[in-house]
Amino acid sequence: MRVAQVAPLAESVPPKLYGGTERVVAYLTDELVRQGHDVTLFASADSCTSAHLVPLCDRALRLSSEPRDTLALHFLMVERVARMEEQFDVIHFHVAPLHFPVARRLQTAHITTLHGRLDLPDLTELYQEYCEMRVVSISNAQRTPLSVANWFGTVYHGLPETALRLHETGGSYFAFVGRISPEKRVDRAIAIAKACRIPLRIAAKVDPVDAAYFERDIRPLLDDPLITYVGEIGHDEKDAFLGNAKALLFPIDWPEPFGLVMVEALACGTPVVAFRGGSVDEIIEDGVTGYIVENLEDAIAAARRSDTLDRRACRASFERRFTASRMARDYLELYTAVANITTPLQRATS
Amino acid sequence: MRVAQVAPLAESVPPKLYGGTERVVAYLTDELVRQGHDVTLFASADSCTSAHLVPLCDRALRLSSEPRDTLALHFLMVERVARMEEQFDVIHFHVAPLHFPVARRLQTAHITTLHGRLDLPDLTELYQEYCEMRVVSISNAQRTPLSVANWFGTVYHGLPETALRLHETGGSYFAFVGRISPEKRVDRAIAIAKACRIPLRIAAKVDPVDAAYFERDIRPLLDDPLITYVGEIGHDEKDAFLGNAKALLFPIDWPEPFGLVMVEALACGTPVVAFRGGSVDEIIEDGVTGYIVENLEDAIAAARRSDTLDRRACRASFERRFTASRMARDYLELYTAVANITTPLQRATS
Repeated sequence: MRVAQVAPLAESVPPKLYGGTERVVAYLTDELVRQGHDVTLFASADSCTSAHLVPLCDRALRLSSEPRDTLALHFLMVERVARMEEQFDVIHFHVAPLHFPVARRLQTAHITTLHGRLDLPDLTELYQEYCEMRVVSISNAQRTPLSVANWFGTVYHGLPETALRLHETGGSYFAFVGRISPEKRVDRAIAIAKACRIPLRIAAKVDPVDAAYFERDIRPLLDDPLITYVGEIGHDEKDAFLGNAKALLFPIDWPEPFGLVMVEALACGTPVVAFRGGSVDEIIEDGVTGYIVENLEDAIAAARRSDTLDRRACRASFERRFTASRMARDYLELYTAVANITTPLQRATS
Repeated sequence: MRVAQVAPLAESVPPKLYGGTERVVAYLTDELVRQGHDVTLFASADSCTSAHLVPLCDRALRLSSEPRDTLALHFLMVERVARMEEQFDVIHFHVAPLHFPVARRLQTAHITTLHGRLDLPDLTELYQEYCEMRVVSISNAQRTPLSVANWFGTVYHGLPETALRLHETGGSYFAFVGRISPEKRVDRAIAIAKACRIPLRIAAKVDPVDAAYFERDIRPLLDDPLITYVGEIGHDEKDAFLGNAKALLFPIDWPEPFGLVMVEALACGTPVVAFRGGSVDEIIEDGVTGYIVENLEDAIAAARRSDTLDRRACRASFERRFTASRMARDYLELYTAVANITTPLQRATS
């Protein structure tokens, strides 16, 4: 199948450091190539892929030193896709809603994975307007606030089986990985660690928008011998960071659309102590691959007993449900379905 | 003529406070109506117009208290324009480049006024891609970095003749009006006032992006009996604020695309001391309606002698060159031209 993958330009594919969406696009793209498909990747020029790369700007935007025009660069990418559309059976967009106006002109079948939160009120009207866009959720929970969208499937993210390995015995610390931002609640992770008297290592980035929150609310909490803030880590460091942890703490306070780091922890055999919300119920098997809690008291109790969980069961859950090959098979089903729906109808009336 | 005006949603039309683009759209719209045209204004619902208003979101975005999705709301507006396009002879966009992907689908003649700076490198490729978009500059200088664009005319902004009145005698202070940001160089205005021992009144807004610059670089300079910072002012206050000034200081350090406040000062009879850059040469008649300078020393000398300029000559220059009726006539010429070019060709091939 001839497939185009259209990635955001914020990060390279895969990202050098943090960046969930572009990492998933990288895994999906390489796995589709491995399965013998003809894949073209639209992404920043510093991307690295086994597919045909159509390079869009010299460097990924988040780590660019000069000011860039994000809107202009994404419009340029999508117009480039439109000019090349006859080369593809299916186009898979990961940049919603930036491509919607151009996608209205396409003759080629396309689907769009929505990677972000969807609970902003303005989105309802947007997805009513663009009701012909077939969209894919990354968890069932993600759909809740946006029932009006034209949902075409749910596909959970996946990682290559070899990306991370089972660590049969966990280490002596809790891990936190993600962004420092109010909805990720690293403050709760710190409170859990302090209550358990167990060290916490925090691998996290701070976006400019969250800099004031970090300085005011979080930095004062770091001044404790139990707490280590290691900054942003790259993928190469994740195996050791997550694999050597006793548990991943995931004390979110928002409707997390997916939460890739939960799956990364499971791939290492590391169980997850997560607050209920968003995708958590769909990813963690409560009492098997982690504990799902509702409040801080339960979280502390769950964290204390987290090393009684079977790390092989965590890895097995990953291998069964969250590999890149499973993700690619799921998407190929959707590609086939949309190509069968779209082609005869749209081409006939054009 | 049936004309659509498509305004940004950042501010209402006209804006409650600061907001050059939306103010100009308001003046143009009301003047076209006054001249007997059938005008439809796409703008935020809190706008106030003599045209038919198509209200797009309940409140202008900059002063909205909740987080809004700017991209979604502008896409919704432009799709609404597209659905109504047959009701218009010409569509006039003020939201570039947000409408470019949708404008590619339009059958109706349209032009786009570019209101912002154009010296960001990513724009060259954007305007090469969208080379069929006929664009209008607000000064000739604005075009310099973007010769590749499909320039269709230059139309200087204009104000209603009655918006501001001639103050025959100036007051005892210098005025600064605008944003507090590094390129507007309010620090230079302060230095000029201090060197002249003449009071300076600063009416300016501070955008969130400039908050740190304001606190670090500007606030310490305000602690002087000569300097008064009055914050952001609305249009009703401008007549007194500008009209009672000895001169407007406009010490910019960037390619100002137009600089509406220069024209507002002239309408009050107040001369302008401006640093050369962007549109300044086209708006100020050096030695007649103000002084154009290259450095701080010359600026101080010019400011000292600014009250020797004839305030009636400033007002006369405004009446001759920068009224809303002149602006509307200029745009009507472009509307007629683009309607004559577009309609037969595009409709025939659609």
